[in-house]
Amino acid sequence: MRQEASRVLLVGGNGFIGSHLIDELLRKGYSVRVLDRNPEIFRKAVPGVEYVTGSFADLFTLREAVEGCDILIHLAHSTVPSTSLNHPEEEVLASVGAFVNMINCFKHKAIGKIVYFSSGGAVYGNPESLPVFEEARAKPISPYGVAKLMMEKYLYMFSYLYGLEYIIVRPSNPFGPRQNYMGEQGVIPIFFRKILDDETISIWGDGKGTKDYLYVEDLAGAVVSLIESGFDKSIYNISSGIGRSLLSIIDNISNICGKRPNIEFVAKRTHDVSNITLSFDKIRNRTGWVPTTTFEDGLIQTFKWIQNTKSNMSK
Amino acid sequence: MRQEASRVLLVGGNGFIGSHLIDELLRKGYSVRVLDRNPEIFRKAVPGVEYVTGSFADLFTLREAVEGCDILIHLAHSTVPSTSLNHPEEEVLASVGAFVNMINCFKHKAIGKIVYFSSGGAVYGNPESLPVFEEARAKPISPYGVAKLMMEKYLYMFSYLYGLEYIIVRPSNPFGPRQNYMGEQGVIPIFFRKILDDETISIWGDGKGTKDYLYVEDLAGAVVSLIESGFDKSIYNISSGIGRSLLSIIDNISNICGKRPNIEFVAKRTHDVSNITLSFDKIRNRTGWVPTTTFEDGLIQTFKWIQNTKSNMSK
Repeated sequence: MRQEASRVLLVGGNGFIGSHLIDELLRKGYSVRVLDRNPEIFRKAVPGVEYVTGSFADLFTLREAVEGCDILIHLAHSTVPSTSLNHPEEEVLASVGAFVNMINCFKHKAIGKIVYFSSGGAVYGNPESLPVFEEARAKPISPYGVAKLMMEKYLYMFSYLYGLEYIIVRPSNPFGPRQNYMGEQGVIPIFFRKILDDETISIWGDGKGTKDYLYVEDLAGAVVSLIESGFDKSIYNISSGIGRSLLSIIDNISNICGKRPNIEFVAKRTHDVSNITLSFDKIRNRTGWVPTTTFEDGLIQTFKWIQNTKSNMSK
Repeated sequence: MRQEASRVLLVGGNGFIGSHLIDELLRKGYSVRVLDRNPEIFRKAVPGVEYVTGSFADLFTLREAVEGCDILIHLAHSTVPSTSLNHPEEEVLASVGAFVNMINCFKHKAIGKIVYFSSGGAVYGNPESLPVFEEARAKPISPYGVAKLMMEKYLYMFSYLYGLEYIIVRPSNPFGPRQNYMGEQGVIPIFFRKILDDETISIWGDGKGTKDYLYVEDLAGAVVSLIESGFDKSIYNISSGIGRSLLSIIDNISNICGKRPNIEFVAKRTHDVSNITLSFDKIRNRTGWVPTTTFEDGLIQTFKWIQNTKSNMSK
């Protein structure tokens, strides 16, 4: 089933997840092109990768970027769940509008296969039972989640009407090296940095709600395993299947750092999903993929990377 | 449970369905205000109704229109399924963007109760089994259907976050007086007019696919019965529960007109749902509503209205 000599375009490929997909795709012998507005934050240009600078919302640039590619992996999104609440209409206009514009161009067959990065954390809303399977009802509670769901629905529709092939992935919370520890998203690197810098950690709610965290290299491996199994127009959770609370994660991180943080508890944010773990049965049944990095090993890799990066930056 | 002395704002209330809701609401003692860009096509201003001219996308006008209203019924939509395919990005930007903008304003409690008109014909896509219940998976196959579904999801999200109360209705194909026989939508008045004018009727596909048609006064009665049962944040099909093919409808209409049309069969449109009937068990269980107008009586009322209107217009 291997796609021989495929060239893959990563839209928004210079972000955290994209940077690991680049590595995994290169390792598996794919040609890789990246379309992004910005370079990677934590790495120089990767040898062997072609870079196109710009936005996928600029259809001229997009056309240039897709030329000669067989597969498009869509990672770009203009907001994260917390910021999407401030301007829900921009979520629709910017994220969804640009995505629909892009997909609409592909009815002319500029590209035939798409991997769409949806969100396992945001699309389901508060699940009715755990773990969550792909067939569960999607009732998102943030504009970000609604937008992600809407793009899934458009993909289905365009595929139905114009024959586009696709895979939709719904990853749980990825973590690992190159996740921005100064960013808006990603509690794990943020906790590491705060503990290392002796800053107080703020927790929304009581810190006991559990979510599903997955080491980013496992995520990248999962996505490539799906590509190699063929584009079956299906939706796949990609997850560890294990729920972890913020308090337990802080314990793990404290042990690695050898010190404990101050924690302050602040009011729960309404758009936060309370408890969620995702089943990965479906992808395992299709590709045999299972997560292979233990949570603790993933944390240690993350810790080493943050230590190196912080010390390089302070030099 | 009756909402005493409620004032209802009908957004897009001068269209076909809105005009019948006006009648039903007035009959039940509600105060009625209409916000629409245009007046009704087939009637003069209705005595007792307040009219505000403008678009709900203009938030200044919207604010003026909602002032003093308790309930908003949202009927406006900028496209129909067939035209939405030509410009799917406009479907997102215009319809969904404006709707989200509007709902977003209501987190400041300008209005607390919304009836949203979704689409029983477009939201489900091609159903997996018939009749379709509200819990069925929604897999729309037109941008119009995707947009309607997303507005449902936004409504749920805003309600979850900000406490807005709502009812979502998914009507099947309404027909009856004041449906534009020169329009893009509404096969029944269009067939009447073509038969009366001896024009050939074009049918996409073989004309044997069955859909669910509901007399518009029954639809208006259903919506008001839901309003009177309270805003339970649920989704309701409103339908006849009976599937009818275009060929059988042409038979019915031919019998009423006393003459038969020429029919030409043209290629099926991909975005057309093949067969659909909707269960109305859920609304019946809640409000006791059932359709009370037979299909034949509904056709006769429609016929009389078209005859009168056409003869008045040719005078």
